[in-house]
Amino acid sequence: MILGQEPILLTPGPLTTSPATKQAMLRDWGSWDASFNAITGSICKDLVDVVHGAGTHVCVPLQGSGTFSVEAAIANVVPRTGKVLVPQNGAYCQRILKILGYLGRAHVAIDMPEDQYPTGEMVEKALAADPSITHVAQVHCETGTGILNPLADIAAACARRKVGLIVDAMSSFGALEIDVSKYPVDAVVAASGKCIEGVPGMGFVIVKRDVLEKSQGNSHSLAMDLFDQWTYMQKTTQWRFTPPTHVVAAFRVALDQFLAEGGQPARGARYAKNCETLVEGMASLGFRPFLPKAIQAPVIVTFHAPGDPAYGFKDFYERVKARGYVLYPGKLTQVETFRVGCIGAIDANEMRNVVSAVSQTLADMGVRKMEPLKAAA
Amino acid sequence: MILGQEPILLTPGPLTTSPATKQAMLRDWGSWDASFNAITGSICKDLVDVVHGAGTHVCVPLQGSGTFSVEAAIANVVPRTGKVLVPQNGAYCQRILKILGYLGRAHVAIDMPEDQYPTGEMVEKALAADPSITHVAQVHCETGTGILNPLADIAAACARRKVGLIVDAMSSFGALEIDVSKYPVDAVVAASGKCIEGVPGMGFVIVKRDVLEKSQGNSHSLAMDLFDQWTYMQKTTQWRFTPPTHVVAAFRVALDQFLAEGGQPARGARYAKNCETLVEGMASLGFRPFLPKAIQAPVIVTFHAPGDPAYGFKDFYERVKARGYVLYPGKLTQVETFRVGCIGAIDANEMRNVVSAVSQTLADMGVRKMEPLKAAA
Repeated sequence: MILGQEPILLTPGPLTTSPATKQAMLRDWGSWDASFNAITGSICKDLVDVVHGAGTHVCVPLQGSGTFSVEAAIANVVPRTGKVLVPQNGAYCQRILKILGYLGRAHVAIDMPEDQYPTGEMVEKALAADPSITHVAQVHCETGTGILNPLADIAAACARRKVGLIVDAMSSFGALEIDVSKYPVDAVVAASGKCIEGVPGMGFVIVKRDVLEKSQGNSHSLAMDLFDQWTYMQKTTQWRFTPPTHVVAAFRVALDQFLAEGGQPARGARYAKNCETLVEGMASLGFRPFLPKAIQAPVIVTFHAPGDPAYGFKDFYERVKARGYVLYPGKLTQVETFRVGCIGAIDANEMRNVVSAVSQTLADMGVRKMEPLKAAA
Repeated sequence: MILGQEPILLTPGPLTTSPATKQAMLRDWGSWDASFNAITGSICKDLVDVVHGAGTHVCVPLQGSGTFSVEAAIANVVPRTGKVLVPQNGAYCQRILKILGYLGRAHVAIDMPEDQYPTGEMVEKALAADPSITHVAQVHCETGTGILNPLADIAAACARRKVGLIVDAMSSFGALEIDVSKYPVDAVVAASGKCIEGVPGMGFVIVKRDVLEKSQGNSHSLAMDLFDQWTYMQKTTQWRFTPPTHVVAAFRVALDQFLAEGGQPARGARYAKNCETLVEGMASLGFRPFLPKAIQAPVIVTFHAPGDPAYGFKDFYERVKARGYVLYPGKLTQVETFRVGCIGAIDANEMRNVVSAVSQTLADMGVRKMEPLKAAA
């Protein structure tokens, strides 16, 4: 750790960004200025290309965190008379259900344990059983645990039953393949501060153009009205309301680095290597991941906490942070866990280093018994 | 203009921020981390103090632009059965009416010409005539023209009629006196990228604690639910959803500079001097402000465009920008105008310099006839 350097964030976003990305914020931009609006336009174009949506989809950026964009996508895409099916296996799926409650949109869930995913077959069965369902809202990588849900399978099921699909791709966009040219998707939602490695402050919805064009009047909110945002942008190139200019400028620079690295395949490969290095290193210390390897997305890994009475997360967190790495708390209610992110401007060396930091921390704390207190299901 | 330096923004926000404020964004912060959440907490405390609300009011920060916070304030403070009176004299008043339409809250306006303000007396009369009105939503400084609306008078009228008051103080907060200990105000709304001179990306609502405590269930939106945001923050010190960490860190540094300068009185005095210098300098070139001096807020000045056929705003804008200053278009529909901001990390020297830049630009363009095409009303 270089003296005076900030700790590395091994969190699901905000994450560690590159110096170039942060330096892009050393300039003030006028939100009316053509040079700034050209940046917004180029970001939107590039984001559509990440999911192969050129010609069919458009990108509508939105101020706020990713959740603002998820709420906006649901509110705009699902008509007020629509009904949404949510395959549910974690905290972010539950957040979608909460949003549907606020919006007053009818909804139903397929509830799964957090270490299992709902299949396309299950979704298709649920759609067949309830023909009033108009849309499915899916979380691609459920950040609550790190589980990868089967996007292509579920999209195929939606296509067969002719219902719309909204994908919360918050922690997968740019890292895992999403290809709207292979299967129909109404909307893909993500945010600046995730796998594209920008800073947090804006989200975006990649939405099927004909779906967006028919969405006027759906939104419950002026600020979150994607139809209005898009229409205004088409006309003026500007955001309707003050954009987070520094965040947008940093996002452009982050996207440049993403493209220079080789786009989604290269980014996904780096994260996969990070994840593999992390899991192997932690296994050598006796840590067991919550999820089986086959369904672990290379984004964030949930580990069982050691059962040793000398272990406590807050203490562990502070000590690992003092050694240069910021971890993330677990989000499970049944078992004591913590999470380690594999995303951000970091490589496998950092993963090896955090394993060393964890190893030294366990020794400092006197943690010896690594088996979790409660066995996983 | 220093070579390679960005132009100075004379816009109503985003505006020119200090180097220290921008440099605060050169660090990534974990949103779960105690050191980051301490920053959020200290910002909220200081913002409440700016309007003298300690003990009665709390601050709820919200991701997004100022408009997100205005919408959130109205949605949370006004019960679904409420009715809102909007004294209306410009674009941002009209935006509030639009928000009320989206929210499905009953509303009525007092429509005024853009160069006149609705008085406390007018508001009181309207409230007396319609006892079903529960709240008034007022724009303090209407950025559309730069007019200063009479907050204290209107607040007194609301107090006499026992209705709530929501103040959109977007472009006045920190520059003009707002004192919730002198007159009752339910909520004051502003944003990071205005007179506190942070960067854009978050707003905040200073809301009366007992009003907020009774607001559960009012919000139409999960993302904009201020009650939920506040309750969660009280419990955890964290934002509910990913905060714009870099924007928050920069806002803290901007607030430090605001306090070091001497708070609102000093900030307001600097802006007043900027405004005076600008208006005098522009007058010497033959430019006439749209508003009489007595109702001009020292925030942004609307000038009549020259009537000379050689004048066109886009050309004028580009040429003044090439000389180092970014101006702002007018927002009036009846008369051709442009706007010049007096706010940001700038002093009277910059105002003298922009007047020189405008003078040279007019000469370059061959603009001689300064009288506007249409006389002001």
